[in-house]
Amino acid sequence: MMDGLDWIAVDWGTSNLRAWLMAADGTILDKRSSDRGMNALSRDGFEPALLDLVGDAIGHGPVTVIVCGMAGSRQGWAEAPYRSVPSAPPRLSAATRALVHDPRLDVRILPGLKQEQPADVMRGEETQLRGIFLANPGFDGTICLPGTHTKWVQVSAREVVSFRTFMTGELYALLSANSVLRHSIGEGWDGEAFSEAVSDAMSRPGSVAAHLFGLRAEGLLRGLDGARAASRLSGLLIGLELAGARPYWLGQPIILAGASDLSRAYESALSAQGAAVERLDAEAVTLAGLVAARADMKETTT
Amino acid sequence: MMDGLDWIAVDWGTSNLRAWLMAADGTILDKRSSDRGMNALSRDGFEPALLDLVGDAIGHGPVTVIVCGMAGSRQGWAEAPYRSVPSAPPRLSAATRALVHDPRLDVRILPGLKQEQPADVMRGEETQLRGIFLANPGFDGTICLPGTHTKWVQVSAREVVSFRTFMTGELYALLSANSVLRHSIGEGWDGEAFSEAVSDAMSRPGSVAAHLFGLRAEGLLRGLDGARAASRLSGLLIGLELAGARPYWLGQPIILAGASDLSRAYESALSAQGAAVERLDAEAVTLAGLVAARADMKETTT
Repeated sequence: MMDGLDWIAVDWGTSNLRAWLMAADGTILDKRSSDRGMNALSRDGFEPALLDLVGDAIGHGPVTVIVCGMAGSRQGWAEAPYRSVPSAPPRLSAATRALVHDPRLDVRILPGLKQEQPADVMRGEETQLRGIFLANPGFDGTICLPGTHTKWVQVSAREVVSFRTFMTGELYALLSANSVLRHSIGEGWDGEAFSEAVSDAMSRPGSVAAHLFGLRAEGLLRGLDGARAASRLSGLLIGLELAGARPYWLGQPIILAGASDLSRAYESALSAQGAAVERLDAEAVTLAGLVAARADMKETTT
Repeated sequence: MMDGLDWIAVDWGTSNLRAWLMAADGTILDKRSSDRGMNALSRDGFEPALLDLVGDAIGHGPVTVIVCGMAGSRQGWAEAPYRSVPSAPPRLSAATRALVHDPRLDVRILPGLKQEQPADVMRGEETQLRGIFLANPGFDGTICLPGTHTKWVQVSAREVVSFRTFMTGELYALLSANSVLRHSIGEGWDGEAFSEAVSDAMSRPGSVAAHLFGLRAEGLLRGLDGARAASRLSGLLIGLELAGARPYWLGQPIILAGASDLSRAYESALSAQGAAVERLDAEAVTLAGLVAARADMKETTT
């Protein structure tokens, strides 16, 4: 066993697997990741993928592994059924134990949250929310988690009251890589083009599909710069989202936690609307949520 | 030469090549198509692709071939530079002659139209518009050409006054085949689900990206039927477009010309808004526009 290893925190998403090797005092002994996310695995591929990533550190074990994310979906390692909102982020007592062949592993998968009306689901973000609550114990307001499927979450008294998911990140990825716009989109960032596009989309959300083709047309007619096109594409999609998510952010204190570039773009768009935004590191809040789940376990077993 | 062959009409788009073998009296002797659209060809691949499709019919030639569509773009066979709106659909005198190796071919490529503000372009649709004008000589109003890149065109006195392109069809294709929604989308049609989704998107266009993820969530939580999901996806995207294209259709007479299923969906959405819609066959108007270009040629050479 790796010196001092006490447990392993795992965030297992659709496209990535990330693991933190943790000491009992909260020290991160090592951090490892692979691209073997849920999409790349069948049910019996999860245990080998985990062992490939951290098996050398386990020694004779046994070791506790606490997992959040898509590994808990029906197509994942073991289904951890959704809890319904309103709800606090689920505690470890609600976790599902994964069946394992290797006796050195004790794997617990945290459930996600579901909402009946409008229908919505999250897996992994509930653990980020728990981490955010720990860092901001008195926070009531809105938490925005930008990503492939951006979540807007209304929270009060450390509970999730309601939430809504926008496919903004996935739309950006599809349009920039697979649509006719792939010829127009380049590298780099143009803050002014982004802000203009946010404003265009917020004032007339219906014309977004026309503004999108406009990027292609401007490329053909006026040689639109690739960085400008990328920034306008991002601004159009985030502006469309902000128009739809208005009830979540208007007049609310907002905490943003996502990848840093994307969070900065959301912060800039929201600040231009006069919203008060605090930005947190997404990875740090994920780990904080998993650490809290580990603490649940100690409470119940000692 | 095929008995009675006088000329060949060609619609050469991004993904398909379609040819009509025409007699002097307007009879269609044969109709042929292939999937060798512009995207599948380099510049020197166009002539062989055309000969593969119709070479057997040409005999000793020479034969006139009139082409509309993406074959005239900068990445196509030979660039036919855009004409600026306001403009009538370009006549054959504006066509570009393609360089050919086979002396039996006389190839003329019709130009598209461009608009500076907002930046927009069309290639192929200008020829459909000419066909529509011939069928409806007194028509002033809006022409909608649904497709991968749906065009809304304001016309007056047989001229294109302005137009706007919406990426609706391409968004549908990307989301249904390549996004997380691919698990939810099935075959079939549900008219009620379509109409509800059009209405949802028109009343709150900003929430479309959330309604999109809602299809996935309803699939997970309530086993949403695949036909319902497909119809809702189509309705959300067409509703978003109708919200943005409102100045084009509100209070205007409208002619629709596109693939029949898609045109019927647009007709149902527009009729629900109280718009007066006439539907024409897209292929027929394309051919009519090419026939008119052929008639230009006879005028100038006899």
